[in-house]
Amino acid sequence: MKIEGLKHTGTPRNHFASDNNSPAHPAVMEAILDANRGHALAYGDDYYTERASKLLKETFGTSCDPFFVYTGTGANTLCVSALARSYNAVICSENAHLNSAECGAPEKFAGVKLYTVPSSSGKITFSDVEAFLSYRGNQHYSQPRVISLTQASDLGICYSVEEVRQLCDFAHANNMYVHMDGARIYNACAALGVSLKEMTADAGLDALSLGGTKNGLLGSEAVIFFRPELAEGFQYIRKQGMQLASKMRFLAVQMEALLTDGLWLNNARHANYMARLLKEELDGIPGLEVTRPVQTNMVYCIIPLKAVEEIRRRYLFYIFDENRSEARLVTNYDTAAEDVAGFAETARKAMTGLF
Amino acid sequence: MKIEGLKHTGTPRNHFASDNNSPAHPAVMEAILDANRGHALAYGDDYYTERASKLLKETFGTSCDPFFVYTGTGANTLCVSALARSYNAVICSENAHLNSAECGAPEKFAGVKLYTVPSSSGKITFSDVEAFLSYRGNQHYSQPRVISLTQASDLGICYSVEEVRQLCDFAHANNMYVHMDGARIYNACAALGVSLKEMTADAGLDALSLGGTKNGLLGSEAVIFFRPELAEGFQYIRKQGMQLASKMRFLAVQMEALLTDGLWLNNARHANYMARLLKEELDGIPGLEVTRPVQTNMVYCIIPLKAVEEIRRRYLFYIFDENRSEARLVTNYDTAAEDVAGFAETARKAMTGLF
Amino acid sequence: MKIEGLKHTGTPRNHFASDNNSPAHPAVMEAILDANRGHALAYGDDYYTERASKLLKETFGTSCDPFFVYTGTGANTLCVSALARSYNAVICSENAHLNSAECGAPEKFAGVKLYTVPSSSGKITFSDVEAFLSYRGNQHYSQPRVISLTQASDLGICYSVEEVRQLCDFAHANNMYVHMDGARIYNACAALGVSLKEMTADAGLDALSLGGTKNGLLGSEAVIFFRPELAEGFQYIRKQGMQLASKMRFLAVQMEALLTDGLWLNNARHANYMARLLKEELDGIPGLEVTRPVQTNMVYCIIPLKAVEEIRRRYLFYIFDENRSEARLVTNYDTAAEDVAGFAETARKAMTGLF
Amino acid sequence: MKIEGLKHTGTPRNHFASDNNSPAHPAVMEAILDANRGHALAYGDDYYTERASKLLKETFGTSCDPFFVYTGTGANTLCVSALARSYNAVICSENAHLNSAECGAPEKFAGVKLYTVPSSSGKITFSDVEAFLSYRGNQHYSQPRVISLTQASDLGICYSVEEVRQLCDFAHANNMYVHMDGARIYNACAALGVSLKEMTADAGLDALSLGGTKNGLLGSEAVIFFRPELAEGFQYIRKQGMQLASKMRFLAVQMEALLTDGLWLNNARHANYMARLLKEELDGIPGLEVTRPVQTNMVYCIIPLKAVEEIRRRYLFYIFDENRSEARLVTNYDTAAEDVAGFAETARKAMTGLF
Repeated sequence: MKIEGLKHTGTPRNHFASDNNSPAHPAVMEAILDANRGHALAYGDDYYTERASKLLKETFGTSCDPFFVYTGTGANTLCVSALARSYNAVICSENAHLNSAECGAPEKFAGVKLYTVPSSSGKITFSDVEAFLSYRGNQHYSQPRVISLTQASDLGICYSVEEVRQLCDFAHANNMYVHMDGARIYNACAALGVSLKEMTADAGLDALSLGGTKNGLLGSEAVIFFRPELAEGFQYIRKQGMQLASKMRFLAVQMEALLTDGLWLNNARHANYMARLLKEELDGIPGLEVTRPVQTNMVYCIIPLKAVEEIRRRYLFYIFDENRSEARLVTNYDTAAEDVAGFAETARKAMTGLF
Repeated sequence: MKIEGLKHTGTPRNHFASDNNSPAHPAVMEAILDANRGHALAYGDDYYTERASKLLKETFGTSCDPFFVYTGTGANTLCVSALARSYNAVICSENAHLNSAECGAPEKFAGVKLYTVPSSSGKITFSDVEAFLSYRGNQHYSQPRVISLTQASDLGICYSVEEVRQLCDFAHANNMYVHMDGARIYNACAALGVSLKEMTADAGLDALSLGGTKNGLLGSEAVIFFRPELAEGFQYIRKQGMQLASKMRFLAVQMEALLTDGLWLNNARHANYMARLLKEELDGIPGLEVTRPVQTNMVYCIIPLKAVEEIRRRYLFYIFDENRSEARLVTNYDTAAEDVAGFAETARKAMTGLF
Repeated sequence: MKIEGLKHTGTPRNHFASDNNSPAHPAVMEAILDANRGHALAYGDDYYTERASKLLKETFGTSCDPFFVYTGTGANTLCVSALARSYNAVICSENAHLNSAECGAPEKFAGVKLYTVPSSSGKITFSDVEAFLSYRGNQHYSQPRVISLTQASDLGICYSVEEVRQLCDFAHANNMYVHMDGARIYNACAALGVSLKEMTADAGLDALSLGGTKNGLLGSEAVIFFRPELAEGFQYIRKQGMQLASKMRFLAVQMEALLTDGLWLNNARHANYMARLLKEELDGIPGLEVTRPVQTNMVYCIIPLKAVEEIRRRYLFYIFDENRSEARLVTNYDTAAEDVAGFAETARKAMTGLF
Repeated sequence: MKIEGLKHTGTPRNHFASDNNSPAHPAVMEAILDANRGHALAYGDDYYTERASKLLKETFGTSCDPFFVYTGTGANTLCVSALARSYNAVICSENAHLNSAECGAPEKFAGVKLYTVPSSSGKITFSDVEAFLSYRGNQHYSQPRVISLTQASDLGICYSVEEVRQLCDFAHANNMYVHMDGARIYNACAALGVSLKEMTADAGLDALSLGGTKNGLLGSEAVIFFRPELAEGFQYIRKQGMQLASKMRFLAVQMEALLTDGLWLNNARHANYMARLLKEELDGIPGLEVTRPVQTNMVYCIIPLKAVEEIRRRYLFYIFDENRSEARLVTNYDTAAEDVAGFAETARKAMTGLF
């Protein structure tokens, strides 16, 4: 994904560049302010972290072990470090964030190799994984040990609960673990109408990178293990992985706010809805072509280069595939119907040469 | 440092356990709230980060390169990664945070070896470093390349500007770099009455881990390089090191707030003053023994075990040296004179068996 | 490449499984015996290593820096470590040994990511590399820095000197380095009728993993840098990489023997010739299909599964592609014309159901 | 240990610099020559490796798992990698080879931290280890997991079987493993009159770096695990650690030769005896001071600098401690009584100013 030519406008405005561009949700800011009183023990030994951890256990299943971390790259990389030895391989989609946008963090920190699978949806199937089982026992090959799913995929497509379960069953039958990169798990659950627990613990998942920052947090993610033995020693991995927050309470209360009163669901539903709205608008503009199913909060659309330039004067977004001028448009919890309408109008004008 | 037996009280109160236990300063919260409006490009390409970076350059010298990161462990480890190859060694005090409390992050991530120097003050001298120069050119030894200073040291003692300059001169004359772990650089500068620039760029420093979280931030640190060539490629080290913030603006504005209107100095001065006050109080209590010079915001004091237990019912603090029951008492920007008086009174009662 | 079902026969015999299966050439054993007299300084400070290094400099160019190591995996991985930082990427063919058969050593030790290019010949072109230049400057992507060529490729195909030069020119114009995995460089040079220097230093190469074990040595490889600045610090990389031999003389004299009196060329020529002979024989057997050009010492051939089983009772070899029953037959310096004839006869019988 | 000033003489001669300076024992060369016939499967799937592994199992206990590797640094580092996670620490003597002369290989490859213990004998006791147990459960500290003993220590001193057993019992009672760096285990067993099995498996050891090169091999070491679960996956660690030999048979038969007909014991006994002889000679020279007990094949002796220079014209050796001009003199399986007498005579002359 190239960002060349994408400049900051100076004026805050709702864009379609990334769900990382939105501010923190007011309820999240409230929670932070509320926690900003008096002293609290550092590094997670505080009341807020205890309370938030309890909520995570209620949400994801009482036998799970949650750990707060700063970044999605951190969550993914440290999960891999917990699940794999350095001679292991992680199998994932070619366009999984883990492979395509972590600057080699898993390779560097966990020492593993990634076996990547080409995928137009960003999803992988157990037959993709099966192909790598022939490496088992051959000392020249990194040994397959972890399957990493991105939910929703970086192309906005969801695994069904059943698909996750099948992959977990396959993995466990073959002495492997399943990790889910859940940077956008909220959008997937909202789209499929299932709970976070149904999508993870109940489907047999082993470890989850639980997003947050992309769904309205200031900056907080979590790692969740669904088998106690996998969490053993993870506190040290987190510290050695530079992801242990001293003032942990501020990570904890953000996630707590997100999981309280259905904020995560409302945010994700709204973003998803705005994406569908945007798709419908774009479908109606001659010369534009929505290229992929719109299941969550991303719309992929071929926009002629000249129009891209015009639209970008008002709305920021990225080009996903330069070769065919395919744009990625991301909606957020704070995308307004007016933003969608405004984008559509701008695009229509750009396409009809009205500028 | 053992934390056994140290429990959270449930009631927020100003303790003496750590400068990481204090909340964010109101001005810092203001800055965060102020930045929480509208969309901003992620990963540092935003207006706030640009503005804050400019302020850091004004503060530390226009030719420096600042990078925001999440944690002190991250700042230290990534600095080492930038300054050293894996076959290099970093020379530091035995009780430097880098050695004693990073769970091996520098070894793991940068691959380096630490050559440690025993030091009762937590400071090292160039003659400590000199001893390792005999390893030069011997392929069996990790090659000395970085000197890491902790300012103020983990024992609360400051390097003078002149001492820093001497170490930098020595280092540069010997093809080495000097890194400063500035988790408490503010307290040191406040104590010595020198500016941040005088303590770093002007003294010849190569790289700085600039603290923040210990001096009133919610959670934000920075890495600053004082030679452009050292910053080359650091953006990738930061990303691969899992320290690249997606909503970077929130790290940036915290640091900006700290460096605005002398907040850093006021906070540090106050904490230092409270430490001196505390020392004076403790000096007046028979049976207690302040064990180290009080230059910054830490007071080390031998407190008999029985009294420790009594005092801890009201005030949290850590025991630094179990063997001689030496406590570490840390003051903060939010430590009130009443807190000090309350602690002293409690200690006096505990020592005189009034409980 | 599966090895399942491939058992050792107990009787030493000339097989077609691998050029690693052959013994050391008599001249190499002579050299080892000759060096096995009296004391010699360890770790490379000895007379033999000095003498062999001198010969390598004569062979590859006086400004090159040679280092002896134990294994090809070591040579490749340590070269990458010398040429790249951990946030860099190495671009290579999908079936390069570096990617397919090092059990993740480059990722683990150098921390890098491999960007792989599908290739039916095992070779890559500069347009393959060009595609990755768009990642430049994007902090989320491992930065392309090294192009690694396998000469001859793992499929037995050679880069011409001109192709190597073009890749080097392209690399240098784009601030990249070119590394050559020369495990079978001898076979390539013999096939193309060019000298080792013409293929490497003269073509602009930056670093070479110089094979040896596959061309008649007991076990010795070398790393050669063609720019002095790249060799800086490599002695420490080698030691930290566990490839520093204490009794270095025994690695040195092997390589010296190989480069003396054209032994490398005679060995490689012979192996290549046997491969051509084998190809001709196989071409004459109905039902077999030689699948790839035979330029060096490898013949790829589709052999029906039933025949594979029959032939393997007499001659060991590997199946490269299980799906289409494509065998890889490797000839050696010690493959005799009788071995080829014997194999062909066995194959003919197996194909005509004579067993 | 400085090597400055130590030049190669050009004439092979028996020196006292290192047991790595001696050639391979004739019986070892015979074994290599014997194995150098015909093809053998690569990477350890051959007859010779099977046979040698069987002998190792007979020698060290049938439930052990042996793996051949190239170097002592490799054996040590890969053992640590097998026994520890990167957030673990290895406890060893300050002057253990693992700490002092591996150029940071354990830190780099296993990611661990070394907790070192000052020791004038090079040995550590369980009370040294006990001090680190207070780090248990503190997420800021690398967690103690492996105790590494050097047998004989780098200062030539032996652990008794009982001392090893006590350390193993202590370790196992505290959820730790014991690794032995057995680069000179032969000299220790010879000195103590115990078998290799008594010193290792029977004493409760978990993993052993079995030396060889220092006791008459051309170049071959082994890793032995005494609990099957520790060997799981080690083949991949070895490969990723660049220590998998393609022509494995040549490593295997060397070790086999050493363990056949008591060669290891004869070699070690002889070297030890020569050291005692040397000590007696040096004791008789006024002005020289043997500084440490001579239990194995090393004699430490203070020799005035001027005499050092004189003696070094004839006999190579290293200065262990420059400050007090303490030399390290190492005897070998091939040290002749004449060498000792010659050295003593030279030293006597040097001391009496006869040169």
